[in-house]
Amino acid sequence: MRIVDIIQKKREKEILTDEEIRFLLENYQAGEVPDYQIASFLMAVYFNGMTTEELKVFTETMIDSGETIDFPGVEKFLIDKHSTGGVGDKTTIALAPIFGALGMGTAKLSGKGLGHTGGTIDKFESIKGFKFSNSKEELVKIVNETGTGLMGQADTIVPLDKKLYALRDVTATVSSIPLIASSIMSKKLAVHADAIILDVKVGSGAFMKNLTEARKLAQTMYDLGKAFDRNIVCMLTNMDEPLGNAVGNSLEIVEAVETLKGNGPEDFTYLVEVLGAQALILKGDVKTLEEGIERVKEVIEI
Amino acid sequence: MRIVDIIQKKREKEILTDEEIRFLLENYQAGEVPDYQIASFLMAVYFNGMTTEELKVFTETMIDSGETIDFPGVEKFLIDKHSTGGVGDKTTIALAPIFGALGMGTAKLSGKGLGHTGGTIDKFESIKGFKFSNSKEELVKIVNETGTGLMGQADTIVPLDKKLYALRDVTATVSSIPLIASSIMSKKLAVHADAIILDVKVGSGAFMKNLTEARKLAQTMYDLGKAFDRNIVCMLTNMDEPLGNAVGNSLEIVEAVETLKGNGPEDFTYLVEVLGAQALILKGDVKTLEEGIERVKEVIEI
Repeated sequence: MRIVDIIQKKREKEILTDEEIRFLLENYQAGEVPDYQIASFLMAVYFNGMTTEELKVFTETMIDSGETIDFPGVEKFLIDKHSTGGVGDKTTIALAPIFGALGMGTAKLSGKGLGHTGGTIDKFESIKGFKFSNSKEELVKIVNETGTGLMGQADTIVPLDKKLYALRDVTATVSSIPLIASSIMSKKLAVHADAIILDVKVGSGAFMKNLTEARKLAQTMYDLGKAFDRNIVCMLTNMDEPLGNAVGNSLEIVEAVETLKGNGPEDFTYLVEVLGAQALILKGDVKTLEEGIERVKEVIEI
Repeated sequence: MRIVDIIQKKREKEILTDEEIRFLLENYQAGEVPDYQIASFLMAVYFNGMTTEELKVFTETMIDSGETIDFPGVEKFLIDKHSTGGVGDKTTIALAPIFGALGMGTAKLSGKGLGHTGGTIDKFESIKGFKFSNSKEELVKIVNETGTGLMGQADTIVPLDKKLYALRDVTATVSSIPLIASSIMSKKLAVHADAIILDVKVGSGAFMKNLTEARKLAQTMYDLGKAFDRNIVCMLTNMDEPLGNAVGNSLEIVEAVETLKGNGPEDFTYLVEVLGAQALILKGDVKTLEEGIERVKEVIEI
């Protein structure tokens, strides 16, 4: 098997075999394939995409590049809620306690240093003394104890994504839908929560500026989740304006807490209610969004 | 200026400025741009092509990466006849003496070690003791003395092509029409013959298998020659079967010599006549192909 033939197949839009995809990525991770071959492969993927089956094996190989996280001792229904990010997006900070109040749990990797928006980790770390762990063992321990645990990106979880992303960043291959989907989903699938809720932001303040592209990304990630037999739902939500009123790490913590007290801005409160309702639907506690929203309102308005 | 922005522009099929193309290639030659960025750029070019103006600057920068060859002391009309190659193609070996007999000259770089077909240099070197020089000074001296000189690819002429070709070879970006055109033409344009005759082979035994692609390549090279104000003609000739009867370095030398004596195979003799006629038209000695062919026949049938 020659790497150049795999690149050429992708260039000609022929479908790669599972073996070819694994050969390419595993040898890249092992340092046996030079960056320049992966760079031209990635640009060919940018133009020709990947089928769901190709993308499944691609993502599987990404996950297999590191360790995965299970929660065998946890009975609570664990949610991994992920947003593609936007200005003022402090959703996880409000949602994790709501999931807890609704009898569910949260277990997920959270982002840090995501450009101008900041990640959930950055926001929490604006609280003096608040420290996140990047240790799998600690995450499992915390989720076991409390039902709610977040951890930062660890080098041991999908390490290939880090290597690949660094290359995409300098070769103009970041904005490829299958590559974005695989990058996000590999990190969701490496953590074995019971359900995944994806919140794809779309609009002038989001990474995805237009609805068509955002819809494609959402569909691709949803299909990928389904290909891995995961309980998944995907929403498209507006990001033409900042979410809520507060922007800035510590201000966003305050606004999330105020939202939990029932004093949140309308747009942010509604988003939190809908995402909470989706979790209840995935768990099987409620049948409709309306019913779910009522349940979330009850825990907020105590 | 950032390389990643140049790659992205090409990916989006926006037209690159002269400065961007020069910045990319000059810094690549200087070792300032890594192979992986050029690899993704080349794949983007594979998909999105280049405009004539882009390709002109791209080729100009290639030429400027090394030295060029002039023949200020030569009065003869100098031809650079180039074939894209095929099995049994010994055309230069017969044509160079014919150009001489017709009062013209030959000055060109010739190929060596071109896969299974062999290059003109390989064929000549099957003559015991025959040795080619890769020196510009020696080529100029020989052309000054005899009117006919060939030289092998020297590292000093278009050195960037060698570096770029090595990268294309392992990144599945060889078969891009503008990149092929630029690779061939940069080496033609670096040598200042009075006219260029391109013989683009098309068919099962040629690099270009189908007529549409071959026609595109021919047109692209012709446009490039014209963009540099060169006297150029481009022909498409059939390569579904080996040219002539002899295949193999020394056998092909014999067949070329026999053709000069009027004993050549019909297909090869006709090709030589037509190419000779094209040279006479470019020089302005004749007006029509028929007239030119008659003149070539005369020198063969002495």
